[in-house]
Amino acid sequence: MLNRFASPISSLLDARADGHSLPAGLYTRDDVFEADLDVFFMRHWIYVGLECEVPEAGDAVVIDIGKISVILLRDDENEIRVVRNVCRHRGARILDAGPTVVSKLVCPYHQWTYELDGALSYAPHMGKDFDKSCRSLKPVQFKSIGGLIYICLADEAPKDIETLDEVMRARLAPYDLRNAKVAHQVDVIEEGNWKLTMENNRECYHCSANHPELCVSFVDLDFGFDPESLSAEDREQAEAHFAIYAERTKAWEADGFPSATVEQVRDCETNFRTQRLIIAGAGESQTEDATAASSKLLGKMTRKDLGDTHLWGHNSWNHFMGDHAVTAMVIPLSADKTLVRTKWLVHKDAVEGVDYDLHKLTHVWIETTNQDADLVARSQAGVSDPAYEPGPYSRFSERALDDFATWYIDRMRAHGY
Amino acid sequence: MLNRFASPISSLLDARADGHSLPAGLYTRDDVFEADLDVFFMRHWIYVGLECEVPEAGDAVVIDIGKISVILLRDDENEIRVVRNVCRHRGARILDAGPTVVSKLVCPYHQWTYELDGALSYAPHMGKDFDKSCRSLKPVQFKSIGGLIYICLADEAPKDIETLDEVMRARLAPYDLRNAKVAHQVDVIEEGNWKLTMENNRECYHCSANHPELCVSFVDLDFGFDPESLSAEDREQAEAHFAIYAERTKAWEADGFPSATVEQVRDCETNFRTQRLIIAGAGESQTEDATAASSKLLGKMTRKDLGDTHLWGHNSWNHFMGDHAVTAMVIPLSADKTLVRTKWLVHKDAVEGVDYDLHKLTHVWIETTNQDADLVARSQAGVSDPAYEPGPYSRFSERALDDFATWYIDRMRAHGY
Amino acid sequence: MLNRFASPISSLLDARADGHSLPAGLYTRDDVFEADLDVFFMRHWIYVGLECEVPEAGDAVVIDIGKISVILLRDDENEIRVVRNVCRHRGARILDAGPTVVSKLVCPYHQWTYELDGALSYAPHMGKDFDKSCRSLKPVQFKSIGGLIYICLADEAPKDIETLDEVMRARLAPYDLRNAKVAHQVDVIEEGNWKLTMENNRECYHCSANHPELCVSFVDLDFGFDPESLSAEDREQAEAHFAIYAERTKAWEADGFPSATVEQVRDCETNFRTQRLIIAGAGESQTEDATAASSKLLGKMTRKDLGDTHLWGHNSWNHFMGDHAVTAMVIPLSADKTLVRTKWLVHKDAVEGVDYDLHKLTHVWIETTNQDADLVARSQAGVSDPAYEPGPYSRFSERALDDFATWYIDRMRAHGY
Repeated sequence: MLNRFASPISSLLDARADGHSLPAGLYTRDDVFEADLDVFFMRHWIYVGLECEVPEAGDAVVIDIGKISVILLRDDENEIRVVRNVCRHRGARILDAGPTVVSKLVCPYHQWTYELDGALSYAPHMGKDFDKSCRSLKPVQFKSIGGLIYICLADEAPKDIETLDEVMRARLAPYDLRNAKVAHQVDVIEEGNWKLTMENNRECYHCSANHPELCVSFVDLDFGFDPESLSAEDREQAEAHFAIYAERTKAWEADGFPSATVEQVRDCETNFRTQRLIIAGAGESQTEDATAASSKLLGKMTRKDLGDTHLWGHNSWNHFMGDHAVTAMVIPLSADKTLVRTKWLVHKDAVEGVDYDLHKLTHVWIETTNQDADLVARSQAGVSDPAYEPGPYSRFSERALDDFATWYIDRMRAHGY
Repeated sequence: MLNRFASPISSLLDARADGHSLPAGLYTRDDVFEADLDVFFMRHWIYVGLECEVPEAGDAVVIDIGKISVILLRDDENEIRVVRNVCRHRGARILDAGPTVVSKLVCPYHQWTYELDGALSYAPHMGKDFDKSCRSLKPVQFKSIGGLIYICLADEAPKDIETLDEVMRARLAPYDLRNAKVAHQVDVIEEGNWKLTMENNRECYHCSANHPELCVSFVDLDFGFDPESLSAEDREQAEAHFAIYAERTKAWEADGFPSATVEQVRDCETNFRTQRLIIAGAGESQTEDATAASSKLLGKMTRKDLGDTHLWGHNSWNHFMGDHAVTAMVIPLSADKTLVRTKWLVHKDAVEGVDYDLHKLTHVWIETTNQDADLVARSQAGVSDPAYEPGPYSRFSERALDDFATWYIDRMRAHGY
Repeated sequence: MLNRFASPISSLLDARADGHSLPAGLYTRDDVFEADLDVFFMRHWIYVGLECEVPEAGDAVVIDIGKISVILLRDDENEIRVVRNVCRHRGARILDAGPTVVSKLVCPYHQWTYELDGALSYAPHMGKDFDKSCRSLKPVQFKSIGGLIYICLADEAPKDIETLDEVMRARLAPYDLRNAKVAHQVDVIEEGNWKLTMENNRECYHCSANHPELCVSFVDLDFGFDPESLSAEDREQAEAHFAIYAERTKAWEADGFPSATVEQVRDCETNFRTQRLIIAGAGESQTEDATAASSKLLGKMTRKDLGDTHLWGHNSWNHFMGDHAVTAMVIPLSADKTLVRTKWLVHKDAVEGVDYDLHKLTHVWIETTNQDADLVARSQAGVSDPAYEPGPYSRFSERALDDFATWYIDRMRAHGY
């Protein structure tokens, strides 16, 4: 007879063995999915968009996070605001998902009207004694880090977002993301749990066999390898590569561009890693030939040789390069479905067809994301099979997955699971 | 940590505040949906169709109510019957959904054959000692009110259906719905809970901004307004309108057409409201220009100026006018999906293209229903968002929603929730 | 108020009345579906495919059974193997569903490489101290019965598969299925519980009214009839038919072809029935005119007049005829969805368009399966309706259903339900 009572989530957390992938239920169960949404998407800072998506007063973009919908907008004072997209009357959605321009926020149902700061200014049929002051749109805590918008949906937000802010402020400044624009956006729904999406992103062990386009500019060695498996020749090349790294990092830092690795991935609330990575080949950008896709560089950049400032969060990954940036947001849709929204940023004045070619700009990460979607679906199918048992991570190239799994377990426990 | 045990339904009922929309779970939870089906669709009278859909012996129409399927038919004695559409052998569906004509009810699986009164008359392979008498199709209690068919799927049916019958018999007589025909039928699946569909129908606060076609003939003032918000000019117009109402109602009643409002919406089992409403503009019918869509009037009607006899039930709304009627049935499909089946009735002898133009007949309510479907979907999305909290109903134009919510809570409690 | 706590499965088993179809919940509930998968698809032998689908070393076919995926393959020693399709690293699916040819089993994610016997031979990045020997692909117990592959996914497999093997070995030998080939394969998803699919297959009470194509070659009398319902003339014909059966069976057996009925359908673990049936009309094959579809006969067959050796399992049905065989595998997909995969086998050297016409070969069972899918959907809709109550099986033509339902209940109890 099947055990008809599902084990509590805590016993799945207990069952996790160091250095191994997670027990199946943590990837597949609906109750774990709900707990994940609660812990990692309600109670931690999540990345949801960019200041440059709402450059002018009245610009707004609606972002759905599961059943939650928020409006990121710029108010009449040119300040960023984030509010819940739920009318305070009978709860109707005020705006549809996606970008728009508004002068006020008017609920289409009964025309309750909110100012851009969220205050209710008009509520027909409610009588003159109706107190509008307690019916503002609910505000959402947010933080802009170099133009990247992070929100926290809980009242008590993790304080160690400050470390991320401190580390990234200087690193992101030259890219001046507030004066970038989204040249392209693609949504891919991966048929897998969001943690498999994140695990897949945190290793490059799978790159050489699966990502031919990315491997032109990306050096998989940077994310770990087994030194004893290398031939004498390969070892020599690897040593040369890491010597160049040390030298290049030193030179970049000397020029005022912070480059060294900073990781906050265990024993913390806000999970991130950043490092300035070398771009292979032509060395400029993650394109098919590793040369820049946009002739107009980002922000105040004057050089194309500053590599790739990569930034991981627990629901995002980003690559900031001289000519463009690629930024991905991850939103769980169900235990086995995850939205990956990828945006390509260029200088706000760059003109498609003149300064950049859209295909060249987007090709590598469109292909890479599709390839990853296939791998994630394959993983989800496997971990859902009763034959699955947690397997060993490579101590060379899957260390970041072990960190992530450990952080995941710790954060679940910290929230009472 | 999430509270992993969903609160009991009774605590959601307790949480409802007077004058406010319902707590979220009552619109979204699967267990509430099952309870709603049980209480409001199994244990109350529901509207399911019309006598005129089965005018002759052997005419049948199959109506699905969730997982329940019933056959409305006219038997060999020309009497209406309603039976369950489940073979007494191994349970197969006998007829497919929709209208048909039959001489007997023959199960396609093994040819068990039932007479039109439901009696099993042939059961091959069962042996001559097989007792067919205890294997009739299960009958369903029904009541025809002026040609509108209400059924109750429970053994004990609410007795106060009698009030509805008494009130409506005289009002519906002139329309002679038994001699009408269905000129058109449209199914719309609204992406929302059935109670949001009903709430949406029970106020016209949203009409002016959302229903341009309907507002040609419909007077939103009739469903409430805030007197203090009116300009001097608007107030004068409103006063003039209600003066005309008093006069018109008096005149209609003097001519033998009951017109005054009758409501049974609280402290009752069978929920309904009726009133003869003024039609605006040309004053004849709910069409694009408010003139009659059919030159052949309904039943024994000789006048086009008798307004709109509206009738609400807890799963229906109806408008009976001189030239045609619009009747809508509401069937919940899941917590967040609801079927709205709208039928347009004309005199049985009216000929399309000769006596009426189908587009003119149907346009207003096709547009209105589609607009409402959008509003209901928007409401469902909002009440499913954790940011939703029950909001205040307008005491002027959403009083009927407060009545409906109160009745809903009371009926749930009466059935043990 | 609804009983909010679903009754335990055991009370549904208790409620089953002899001679009647099963209580509704056994056909509709998700927990019963999970229990069925556990008991009947994990802990019993199930039919999954054919030796002739993997004729040469490196041939493989992936078969999905719910969330479980297995690889049936032929290894380098030309031996059949069945292994779980889950990489021992992080669980990715190694091969996609369907047939393929491989030299090794290479996981596309990180190139872990397994030999055709399942042994892990290459695991990059894992370090030289990594113990590959405990990371073989998990093997699956299987048994080939005359070329039909049965697997058992539990460690303890029912031993009475031996009876099936003993009975079928001699019966299947002349058809030499190892030297057949799959000429055609069709997947149909029936909208019903797998037990309704099986019940539908185990009676021919529904055949005459639903399967005109099959009834050319199939004699529904063979599966039961009510002798008292026959006219004098029909009775004479029936007696003649059974006299021919006795004579034909005796003649076939005298020629060395076992033909008598063997049933193991109650008080057993492995459920099966076989008998050599007469083919009606031209007497050769289940085609539109009952003549052979393939001029090249199966295996070592030299005669077309050896009827139809039918074989039932609890997830399969088969018909072995002189010129071809039809074999169907049944896999539950959810409580109300079931996959029926039908394959048509001919001699491996038979050439389409020369030795056989594909339409003639497949037409009867394509039509029959589609007709059955409609009947099963109709049954599922009915048993899901609260009006359903278990109905009586015909003691003449539904005896096999009573056996199946009784075996089902017994096996559930044997596994602790």
